[in-house]
Amino acid sequence: MIDRQKVISELISPNTSKIVLLVMDGIGDIPNEEGLTPLQKANTPNLDALAQKSDLGQTIPVLPGITPGSGPGHLGLFGYDPLKYQIGRGILEALGINVEVGENDLVARGNFATIDGDIIVDRRAGRPSSEESAKVVEILNENIKEIEDVKITFYPGKEHRFVVKLTGEGLMDKLEDADPQKEGKPIKYTKALDESSKKSERIVNILLDKIKEVLKDQPKMNFALLRGFSKHPDMPKFGDVFKLKPAAVAVYPMYKGLAKLVGMEVVEAGQTIEDEFNTVKKLWNEYDFFYVHIKKTDSYGEDGNFDSKVKVIEEVDKFLPILLELNPDVLIVTGDHSTPCVMKGHSFHPVPLMIYAKNTRRGLSKLYNEFECARGSLGTIHAVDVMPLALAYAGRLEKYGA
Amino acid sequence: MIDRQKVISELISPNTSKIVLLVMDGIGDIPNEEGLTPLQKANTPNLDALAQKSDLGQTIPVLPGITPGSGPGHLGLFGYDPLKYQIGRGILEALGINVEVGENDLVARGNFATIDGDIIVDRRAGRPSSEESAKVVEILNENIKEIEDVKITFYPGKEHRFVVKLTGEGLMDKLEDADPQKEGKPIKYTKALDESSKKSERIVNILLDKIKEVLKDQPKMNFALLRGFSKHPDMPKFGDVFKLKPAAVAVYPMYKGLAKLVGMEVVEAGQTIEDEFNTVKKLWNEYDFFYVHIKKTDSYGEDGNFDSKVKVIEEVDKFLPILLELNPDVLIVTGDHSTPCVMKGHSFHPVPLMIYAKNTRRGLSKLYNEFECARGSLGTIHAVDVMPLALAYAGRLEKYGA
Repeated sequence: MIDRQKVISELISPNTSKIVLLVMDGIGDIPNEEGLTPLQKANTPNLDALAQKSDLGQTIPVLPGITPGSGPGHLGLFGYDPLKYQIGRGILEALGINVEVGENDLVARGNFATIDGDIIVDRRAGRPSSEESAKVVEILNENIKEIEDVKITFYPGKEHRFVVKLTGEGLMDKLEDADPQKEGKPIKYTKALDESSKKSERIVNILLDKIKEVLKDQPKMNFALLRGFSKHPDMPKFGDVFKLKPAAVAVYPMYKGLAKLVGMEVVEAGQTIEDEFNTVKKLWNEYDFFYVHIKKTDSYGEDGNFDSKVKVIEEVDKFLPILLELNPDVLIVTGDHSTPCVMKGHSFHPVPLMIYAKNTRRGLSKLYNEFECARGSLGTIHAVDVMPLALAYAGRLEKYGA
Repeated sequence: MIDRQKVISELISPNTSKIVLLVMDGIGDIPNEEGLTPLQKANTPNLDALAQKSDLGQTIPVLPGITPGSGPGHLGLFGYDPLKYQIGRGILEALGINVEVGENDLVARGNFATIDGDIIVDRRAGRPSSEESAKVVEILNENIKEIEDVKITFYPGKEHRFVVKLTGEGLMDKLEDADPQKEGKPIKYTKALDESSKKSERIVNILLDKIKEVLKDQPKMNFALLRGFSKHPDMPKFGDVFKLKPAAVAVYPMYKGLAKLVGMEVVEAGQTIEDEFNTVKKLWNEYDFFYVHIKKTDSYGEDGNFDSKVKVIEEVDKFLPILLELNPDVLIVTGDHSTPCVMKGHSFHPVPLMIYAKNTRRGLSKLYNEFECARGSLGTIHAVDVMPLALAYAGRLEKYGA
């Protein structure tokens, strides 16, 4: 089978161009009762003006019909075939909070939960503050240090979330989640999905019993659910593949983790969209590729909050001149997947794509939205083709063949 | 290589939704001298109203530029890569007339023909009635029962057509057609395309001589051409792959055969479009997937009969409310390939696709025709991606990755 990433990589001839990949998470939508998507509803003079100078299209994140999680959605945009590279949630969460993950490590995402006897009554333990939950993580670290020859370490996350890292020989990650997914159900132990993960199964299930024992007197955080068991995947580095020096500008752990996973440098991005764009400005001379992640388009899509999704888009539009004034050679505005407000979740719909650069076939589209993108000059492509296009518009790809 | 069908299959979470796949055979066309395609010319208020609530796009049946036969055209729509699964015409014809085909069987499609000496003067023996030809099939069955250790059985078909089944050990299907394709040419014997099919070659060529001998006194049906030698292919069942209970509503043998090949249940469909739609209505509670095949759009395309193709489309439109009143969760209106009237045959042109469902990106298109579909919100996709989309719109696909 042809390795398309390798084909692209061999064509690269670096230059001094600057590329910005602006990802509005879950940007794609479908019309509301008024017949408009958030992109259509939002007042976006800057994005629309850009559309007139850009090439538009739409991306299929994985395959038609497939609704991607954040991992596959981003890997595609980063130029990695999401069918080839499959990433567990545990690894993303771990990388996002700066947990180093080595080849003997198995990580999982933890949720503090409340149990009554063996029944899970609250899967988020009443949503404790990050400070409250960090204290309980400390208790776990003091009381559970190893099981057999496996070292155990807990790391605090946001609110009820934490990460647990198991370090030892022979820990594979083919494990079911230790999470019944619903409240009112009994504790669920993990189960190995193949022979290679039997040791992991044993250690994790002992760990669950120990957590239960150690936390038995906690008022709310008296148990934990463990999900997304994963090891560090073996992936080529983004900087090596695409011969770029990449910076990741993201606020949320998951996206920092994804960027780190492909070897991007994660920089301090502040908290707001304005902060993020100013981070790009501040670091403009130090990198030649900027991945900028906007989270809240997705969050409000998941909440079904149309008006707030519109406002986030308008905020991106308002601060877009910060990026435009830097005069990027290539500015890509897209998403990792669609998150239609009426569906309150990720969806399989194609994702709007806009590429602003010098040599576009501009003039076809007047607005940046799902429908203009569906009829744009780039057509309907796979997300994994966005990076090659970015390099091409940046003049970084040599001719293929004589 | 990644098995995409397997990826989709593993994401399926069944629900109670109902999916209808309405296939207007050869629906795609190109403009006539008036500058219109049959879909544009036809008065189709129901299809056009549906287009306004649907996602439109166009499919590539196999690869750009490839003109598919009915087999590959349908396999793609059924979610089977037509480059991976190659089906002989003989097997389709056999399945279509209820001939059981087992693993030791080799089948071929037969045409009664008229020869003068060794020259073929009429490849269809003057198009006998099905009754006339069935009598000759009976004569063959009485006189030719076996050759060496191979059992021979003949089955009557429509008009000049029949099916012959050879049952025995070691009969492979890599054989040239025993058909010179043109009148005025001499009888053509078959030829093995590889070593494995040498036995089949020998038996088939003895069979041709025996047929000639047995039929030598028939006035017109005094010989037979044999084509599409094939064994039963090894394919996963549609119902297992897509976790659906499928019914096939088709009038013509070929399409019943195709449906049977992938394990659909072929139901009694009547004769007319109205009959077919009422069949879906009658069986609505018994299945959750309905493949409905409309033949005559293709037949009239093959005849170059523009006006009659228009009329068939209008008839589909007229009876469409029978399907709409059932309130399907997903209704797909498409074709297996294009059959442009001016080309009088199948073509390689993309095929109009419309998906009506709850969560469409509706509002972009106002009509159902080739041009609206080319600019629709689904873009240009491969036919093999239609089933994943059907499942996605039906809410039957889980998220891929975290």
